Amino acid sequence: MRHELITSLQNPLVKRLHQLLERKGREEQDRFLVEGAHLVEEALNSGAEVLTVLYDEQREIDPACQRAIEKRSGELHIVAVSPAVLGKLTETRSPQGIVAEVKRNQGNWTEWMKSAAERDYLLLLVDEIQDPGNLGTILRTAEAAGVDAVILGEGSVDLYNGKVIRATMGALFRLPVFVHPLPELIEELQSREQARVLVSSLKENSFAYYEADYGGKLAIVIGNEGRGVSEEVARLADGYVHIPLYGRAESLNAAVAAGILVYEAQRSRKTSKK
Amino acid sequence: MRHELITSLQNPLVKRLHQLLERKGREEQDRFLVEGAHLVEEALNSGAEVLTVLYDEQREIDPACQRAIEKRSGELHIVAVSPAVLGKLTETRSPQGIVAEVKRNQGNWTEWMKSAAERDYLLLLVDEIQDPGNLGTILRTAEAAGVDAVILGEGSVDLYNGKVIRATMGALFRLPVFVHPLPELIEELQSREQARVLVSSLKENSFAYYEADYGGKLAIVIGNEGRGVSEEVARLADGYVHIPLYGRAESLNAAVAAGILVYEAQRSRKTSKK
Repeated sequence: MRHELITSLQNPLVKRLHQLLERKGREEQDRFLVEGAHLVEEALNSGAEVLTVLYDEQREIDPACQRAIEKRSGELHIVAVSPAVLGKLTETRSPQGIVAEVKRNQGNWTEWMKSAAERDYLLLLVDEIQDPGNLGTILRTAEAAGVDAVILGEGSVDLYNGKVIRATMGALFRLPVFVHPLPELIEELQSREQARVLVSSLKENSFAYYEADYGGKLAIVIGNEGRGVSEEVARLADGYVHIPLYGRAESLNAAVAAGILVYEAQRSRKTSKK
Repeated sequence: MRHELITSLQNPLVKRLHQLLERKGREEQDRFLVEGAHLVEEALNSGAEVLTVLYDEQREIDPACQRAIEKRSGELHIVAVSPAVLGKLTETRSPQGIVAEVKRNQGNWTEWMKSAAERDYLLLLVDEIQDPGNLGTILRTAEAAGVDAVILGEGSVDLYNGKVIRATMGALFRLPVFVHPLPELIEELQSREQARVLVSSLKENSFAYYEADYGGKLAIVIGNEGRGVSEEVARLADGYVHIPLYGRAESLNAAVAAGILVYEAQRSRKTSKK
């Protein structure tokens, strides 16, 4: 199959897509870029709204990715590009010769909540995480742990940052993720849903993570790498949990802490049902 | 206090220290570099063998770091340098104006084992981890979880890589870490110490991590980001543990997985003693 070939860095499509490497461009265009065969394949197979696929004309496309492209070729704009053009649209040293433009999926939290009203869901709320690798790893871990949805509060790193997407290992395309102000959402969860909200915190009345009650509709809140959960969010909590520090470390990595909490919550929920 | 001032990038000390940014230089000189006020302070206060401290003559030294330097000033070579020289010896954009040269502490595993023979120790064995951020985060997590020592097998990223050190957040200076071939070490643990070795693996006879027995002298082995624990090491195991994947993720991040395992081991050990 023959596709349009773009070799000029001045091509309007290339210039427009290049803007998606910055948060401002992503917000203005409501789109983002996904690099590499595995992530492009995940995006295509997940049902994400993939608009354009650009591949290095001098390289073979990974076979699994190729199949995913063919399945949806009717709805895709597929473009062959020179290595220089691909380099202009990618952030990693070895982008595996392929990049895709994807529509941001700013799903509506309130609708999701209504559709899930009958279930005892487990949510992870993320407050002001700054490091893209941490956020991506948190999403990867939440999906692996079977968390039902993740809600990202304001003041966090951009969900569609390239490093976030790569660190998710595709979880971004398999997990409902919403961006929503957390204080408002927590009040909604508590008043309409009778959900409980557990905040990760070293406050005096905080339970060791293995002694907390994780039953029912539950939201776990994890916070910023340095400061933890913001005071505004923390004071809305129904309870606090912490991970004991047995050594002399002052804290855990945010993604490791999130992993320990969500896995303990899920273990407790699954084993207590037996 | 006045110190020698170095402004030339051609200065022999600067040229020698610059080689420590590469693994080859670290191995030849048996030394490594530590960047930033917090890590330099941790190195000084931990008793690590700090040889040289170099600070940006145009910036103030962090007060806590300054106190740590003063306490050990008799044994340190302290040098003021130009910003350009400091830039040549550092990897981060904002190295906080200070870097230290530290002797590698290649402690002897066998001696540590003998000194700990009376204790029910918990060890973490790391097999072929490649990503420096992952290894550093694993060390940070192990120290926080109260692991007694970490042993790094062959084929892993260099323990003294700058990214590893920064990701440990200082744990490298507070936790016994040894580099030793794992198969030999495991056989020693099993035959001389009657320790049990649990390998993280998805093998069929693997226990869910929350159902394993973590009592007594115990070593937990975690493996490479992509391939897991090598077959050579895995077949020496006394048992296998895995972390269930409830979503569609194929794996967890290596540091997150290590965190879940060592925290569950420690929780089990501490709560069963009550």
